[in-house]
Amino acid sequence: MEFLNRTIQMIGAVDGAARSKAKERLDQLVMPHWALGRLLDLALDLAGICGTIRPSVADKTIVVMAADHGIVAAGVSLYPQDVTREMVRGFVNGVAGINVLARQAGADVKVVDIGIAGDLGGLDSEALIERKIAPGTADFSTQPAMTRQQAVAALEVGIAVARDLAATTDLFGTGDMGIGNTTPSSAVVAALCGRPVAEVTGRGTGLNDEQLRHKVALIETALRLHQPDPADPIDVLSKVGGVEIAGIAGLILGAAALRKPVVVDGFISTVGALLAARLAPLSRQYMIAAHRSVEQGQLAALAELGKEPLLDLGFRLGEGTGAAVAMNLVDGAVAILTEMATFSEAAVSAAQ
Amino acid sequence: MEFLNRTIQMIGAVDGAARSKAKERLDQLVMPHWALGRLLDLALDLAGICGTIRPSVADKTIVVMAADHGIVAAGVSLYPQDVTREMVRGFVNGVAGINVLARQAGADVKVVDIGIAGDLGGLDSEALIERKIAPGTADFSTQPAMTRQQAVAALEVGIAVARDLAATTDLFGTGDMGIGNTTPSSAVVAALCGRPVAEVTGRGTGLNDEQLRHKVALIETALRLHQPDPADPIDVLSKVGGVEIAGIAGLILGAAALRKPVVVDGFISTVGALLAARLAPLSRQYMIAAHRSVEQGQLAALAELGKEPLLDLGFRLGEGTGAAVAMNLVDGAVAILTEMATFSEAAVSAAQ
Repeated sequence: MEFLNRTIQMIGAVDGAARSKAKERLDQLVMPHWALGRLLDLALDLAGICGTIRPSVADKTIVVMAADHGIVAAGVSLYPQDVTREMVRGFVNGVAGINVLARQAGADVKVVDIGIAGDLGGLDSEALIERKIAPGTADFSTQPAMTRQQAVAALEVGIAVARDLAATTDLFGTGDMGIGNTTPSSAVVAALCGRPVAEVTGRGTGLNDEQLRHKVALIETALRLHQPDPADPIDVLSKVGGVEIAGIAGLILGAAALRKPVVVDGFISTVGALLAARLAPLSRQYMIAAHRSVEQGQLAALAELGKEPLLDLGFRLGEGTGAAVAMNLVDGAVAILTEMATFSEAAVSAAQ
Repeated sequence: MEFLNRTIQMIGAVDGAARSKAKERLDQLVMPHWALGRLLDLALDLAGICGTIRPSVADKTIVVMAADHGIVAAGVSLYPQDVTREMVRGFVNGVAGINVLARQAGADVKVVDIGIAGDLGGLDSEALIERKIAPGTADFSTQPAMTRQQAVAALEVGIAVARDLAATTDLFGTGDMGIGNTTPSSAVVAALCGRPVAEVTGRGTGLNDEQLRHKVALIETALRLHQPDPADPIDVLSKVGGVEIAGIAGLILGAAALRKPVVVDGFISTVGALLAARLAPLSRQYMIAAHRSVEQGQLAALAELGKEPLLDLGFRLGEGTGAAVAMNLVDGAVAILTEMATFSEAAVSAAQ
């Protein structure tokens, strides 16, 4: 808790002076005013976050937090729990969606076993970070997903991972792996934002109507049972959350404390971002929303964060895949800020 | 006309068998079904276009067609006509928006002087292709923008450029430069699609309300004066179009005839694409719509083409900047198709 609190206290506002200087330069670039729209907004944000009009985002790391969920026993996913482990093996072998898209974007992938059920059978790789808090959460339809201590420990793992990777990372991306994890994510959003469960719950990996109704009912029952306190994000996280969701929130807090930009992936990651913002409101300024997920629960979280995602490509995979694709846009924004000429540098006539 | 007609006849449908094979593989990739949404749709299209489930898009060229517009004399742009020339100099020097974003995407930039007013003062560069059809169009508020022969010649320049670059290009992108060119673009869309001028006319580089009304009135007057035949795309193009718009249409036809994918930039390029589709309906299958422009005239053209742009970032610059950013997504789509494992390859349990 001490480490978490210290990190939260370290998080300050972005650099307003660097932001203003960037605005001044972007206003003069050789094009009609602000004609590259959101790429320029993003360039402005990056200057503020990095505290310079020449930010570097060359070294990129996508951190995939992996964990399991006791609620899977209640039947909320089409896939068996083993798939979490199997997919982690795929990440380490470099053959999954996130590997492919991270390579395309020039990003490294690190997978954190923060709460996988069972062990990974001696899997050993530079890409794997072993920081298991628990072998999955408990089934929160009958008991709290984890203890408050575990939730804090998972947040602190996220922070520690950000710190450990900071020397080789200019730009972080978040990702998740955990069979069943849209269920705790919807539960956390419903609790924190006070929204009806049905409004923030989607089909995950492909539930049919009846399975979706069952998922909604399970979450409603759990929220009635545990009565999580919406004013206490750690209470919500521990009662109906997930270990990887905590890890993502911690990673974002860690990145913000280090003044590094962090590209937030889809639904699960946005819920992590919402938790981070509730714990440290200024952390919001370091977040870049990557993409609009098919999972509708993301909307309420984005609305509270005041973020409009860069991409809308119908993704519903997680793993950090949307963050990877969005990193190309981050590169583009930085290139515009640092490489494009002004009207006077290019000797081009201005508007009349 | 002979070269144009031959090219149109060469354009065939994409390879349905390769498309089906790609679908089969994408259906089995190690993720919930179609969980990377539009990136998978794009991968499917690329397999069909390239006729293989292992398409290569490594060599990328963005072709910026540059030309001037007599209509500028009637006051439709905030920028003087000289800016077309000045910007072309900027493109050759590598300091403009398109240079920066093309570099980020790993694409070459070629600028075609297809109709710039005045000469470029001995500018010489590998990046510049000299194929001037006319020193700008005539002012179409009083006379046809160009002759039918000039329109055909400009289309054929586009085709020839595509052929000349084909040996070093897997993936084409379109771009435009021409002060005043949203005016002919809106005129062409209004004429071809039978839409009210006000509905398809925007503020270009930043007109105020009064200037916008003037622009709309000019186009309305020109359409009444010339009565372009909506069933004859070359008639519309020659009477109220632009030389670079013709060049873009030709480039797309040339790419389609060569079975190469072409990423279509914003408003001006989408109007070129619409002309290409009217001349050769199958050319549509080779087009990838890059981004939604701020210019509303693009909507009618996209609707007829049946294309949903990949990106929506508030761009209104042209030059091919949206195409450049979208090329990152094309790379991602191909990487998913060619590098990601199936469930069985990755030894991951399927859905139950």
